[in-house]
Amino acid sequence: MRKTYLLTPGPTQVPDRVLALSARQIIHHRTPQFTAIMEEVNAGLKYLFQTKQDVLLLASSGTVAMDAAVTNLFKTGDKVIAINGGKFGERWSKIATAYGLQTVELKLEPGTAATVKQVEALLVANPDARGVLFQASETSTGTRMPTREICALTKSRKDCISVVDAITALGVFDLPMDDWGIDVLITGSQKALMLPPGLACLALSDKAWGLAANANIPKFYFDLSKEKKAIAKGQTTWTPPISLIIGLQETLKMIREEGLHNVFKRHDLLARATRNAVKALGLEVLSKDPSNAVTAVRVPAEIKDGKLIPKTMRDKYGVSIAGGQDELEGKIFRLTHLGYIDRFDVLIGIGALELTLQDLGYSKFQFGTGTGAVLQTYKLT
Amino acid sequence: MRKTYLLTPGPTQVPDRVLALSARQIIHHRTPQFTAIMEEVNAGLKYLFQTKQDVLLLASSGTVAMDAAVTNLFKTGDKVIAINGGKFGERWSKIATAYGLQTVELKLEPGTAATVKQVEALLVANPDARGVLFQASETSTGTRMPTREICALTKSRKDCISVVDAITALGVFDLPMDDWGIDVLITGSQKALMLPPGLACLALSDKAWGLAANANIPKFYFDLSKEKKAIAKGQTTWTPPISLIIGLQETLKMIREEGLHNVFKRHDLLARATRNAVKALGLEVLSKDPSNAVTAVRVPAEIKDGKLIPKTMRDKYGVSIAGGQDELEGKIFRLTHLGYIDRFDVLIGIGALELTLQDLGYSKFQFGTGTGAVLQTYKLT
Repeated sequence: MRKTYLLTPGPTQVPDRVLALSARQIIHHRTPQFTAIMEEVNAGLKYLFQTKQDVLLLASSGTVAMDAAVTNLFKTGDKVIAINGGKFGERWSKIATAYGLQTVELKLEPGTAATVKQVEALLVANPDARGVLFQASETSTGTRMPTREICALTKSRKDCISVVDAITALGVFDLPMDDWGIDVLITGSQKALMLPPGLACLALSDKAWGLAANANIPKFYFDLSKEKKAIAKGQTTWTPPISLIIGLQETLKMIREEGLHNVFKRHDLLARATRNAVKALGLEVLSKDPSNAVTAVRVPAEIKDGKLIPKTMRDKYGVSIAGGQDELEGKIFRLTHLGYIDRFDVLIGIGALELTLQDLGYSKFQFGTGTGAVLQTYKLT
Repeated sequence: MRKTYLLTPGPTQVPDRVLALSARQIIHHRTPQFTAIMEEVNAGLKYLFQTKQDVLLLASSGTVAMDAAVTNLFKTGDKVIAINGGKFGERWSKIATAYGLQTVELKLEPGTAATVKQVEALLVANPDARGVLFQASETSTGTRMPTREICALTKSRKDCISVVDAITALGVFDLPMDDWGIDVLITGSQKALMLPPGLACLALSDKAWGLAANANIPKFYFDLSKEKKAIAKGQTTWTPPISLIIGLQETLKMIREEGLHNVFKRHDLLARATRNAVKALGLEVLSKDPSNAVTAVRVPAEIKDGKLIPKTMRDKYGVSIAGGQDELEGKIFRLTHLGYIDRFDVLIGIGALELTLQDLGYSKFQFGTGTGAVLQTYKLT
C-alpha cells in the first residue's frame, strides 16, 4: 500500500466533495434543473472573476479559451503584442500567428516578469496594436506578471485590450477583473477550480465585446457571441461537460465558504513555505517574481540529470510534481501549491523532495531542513 | 421518493461501473500510467470503429469533431455536398459555410433518408465536390441514412471523401469504417459510449489524411495532424478530459465484453420494441427509415400542445425524453434506446408514455397496449 499525491500545476487534486458528486447519475442539460445549476455557477464565477460580466463556459482545456479569444476578438492582419515569458506566453504568439495576426513578441528571460516600461515602450512603438496578450502567472517558470499595471496601459488606449491567461492565477491571487480593467480573463477547470480538466471559463469586458463585433476570423463551434446569448438563459450553445459543471457548482461553493481573500492568503502562505523550504535546502528559486501558484526551482549542479527529480518523486515516493518544459527540461522542477491544497500537502511535497535530493546525490543538508522551514513559516503566520 | 430515468438521445445513462470510477482521485496525464490507459482506449476505439486507423480524442462535444473535420480537411472555396435531413444535417451546412466552403445542400423532408440516386446525381452534377457530409443517424428525426451506399459513391471518386457524423450511430448499428470506405467517422462520449458529455472521437482514412495535407483553413487548438502525432505516443496535444477518458476505458471494456454485434442486436431489439409499442398505441413513427438509436413519434392530433408530452413525462413521471427541435418543436417527441439501455428501460419509457398520453387526452387505447407490445417483441426474439 502506497498513497499517491498530486502536486502538479494541473490537474490538481479534486476534493472529496466533488468526487462524491461525480458518482451520481448524469442529468440532462436542457432542463430547468440544469439551468438552475448554471445560474448558481455563473453567480459563483462572477464572484471569483470579480466582475459583473457573465462568465462563459467552453468545453475543453484552458487553451481553447485562448484560441477563442483570438478568433473572436481580432481581425486577420490585426497587430497584437504577446508577452512571451515561457511556454504559455509563447503559445499566445503561436495562436495569434496561426490566425493571421501580426504578432509583436516581448521575449523575456525565463523567470523574469515583463516590466511596465517594456510594455509601454512597445505600445508607444506600435500605436496600432489591438491587444496585449499575456499570462497573469506564467506556469512554465512560476512567474507572476504585473497584470494591474499592464491593464492600466491598455485601459487608457481606445482600441487596445488586455487579454489575460489566468489559468494558474485566478483563485490563487487577487485579479479583480472590473477594477483593474482586465478585458478578457481566462481560466481552466483543472487548476484553482479544483476539477478534472475539460472546461474553460472566460469573461469579456464591454470594451472586448465591442471589438468582438468587428472580428472576422472564421469560426463555428467556439463563437463567443452565441455563448453570451446562451449564458443569459442559463445554457451553453452546445452540449456542455455536464459533470464538470456540476462539480464546479460545488467547488465555487467551497471558495465562497472559505472566502476569496482567505483563498488568496492560503495560497500565499503555502507558496512562501515552499520558497522558504527550497532556499533552506540551498536551492534557487528560478523566478525573480515568483507566482503563488507554482514554485520553479533550479536543479542543483550536483544532480546531472534533472529529469530524475520528478521521476524519483513520482515513482519512488508517489508524489507527482512537474519538471521543466521545452528549453527548461531537466533544468528546473516545479512544486505546486495550487487549488485543493493545504499545509500538510506542502509538507509532504518538501519531505519527498528531501528524500529525492539525497537519493540523487545532493546531500549538503540535514533531513528536516526543508520541512522545518515549512513548519517555521506556518508558525510565523 | 421518486426515481428518475434518462431516455434522451444524449446525455444517456452512465453505467454504475463508470460512476464508481468517477469518484476516484484524478491522475496526471503526462505519465506512463495515463499513456497505458490511452493505449487501451485507442485499441478499444479501433474495435468500435472497425478500423486500423488511430482514433483521435478531442475535448468538447461531438459537434467539435464536425467543426474540426471541416477545418482540417478542406480549403477555403472547396465545394462540399451536405445532406440536410434535419437539425444535424443542417449543421454540416452551417459549419461548411462558416469556414468559406461552397455548400451544395440536399434538403430532405423530415423523416426521410437520402437515396443513393439523389446523392449520385449531385456528385455527377458537381464533379468538383470534395466531400459528402452527412449523418449516419439523423438524431432530430430518428432517421438512418444509407451510409454504406453513399460511401461506395465517394470511394470511387479520387478527391472526394465521405464525412460521417455517427454521433448517435456508432455503437448502435454496424458501421465498419475500413470495409465501407468511410473517410471520416465521428462520435461523442454521451451517446452509445455511455459517458458524460465532453469528449469527441474521430478517425480518418488514408484518403482523408491525404486531403488534410492540403487544408488551409486557419486553426490552432483542434489541429488533427498534431493529434495524430500525439496519439501515436499515447497522448493528446492538449490537456485531455482525463476523467472521461478513464470512463471510456471502462465503457469500451463493457462493449467488448458484450461483443459489438450483440450491442447492435440489443439496440435493434429495443428499437423494434419501441416502434411496435408506438404503433400499437395508434401513433405514427415519423421516420420512413427509422434509426435504432432514437424513435421520433408524431404528436397525435388529439394533443394540441405537443411540448406537454416530454414535459409531463419528466415532471410528473420522472422520465426524461426529448421533444422536437426547431421546425419539429411540438410536432414530435423522441424516445431513445441508445447506450446503457436494457429491456426494462424501454418498458419504463413506454409505461410513462401511456400514462402521459391518457393525462393529455389521448385515450383511445387500453393501458397495457404499449407495454404489451414491448413484451411481445421480447418474447418473439
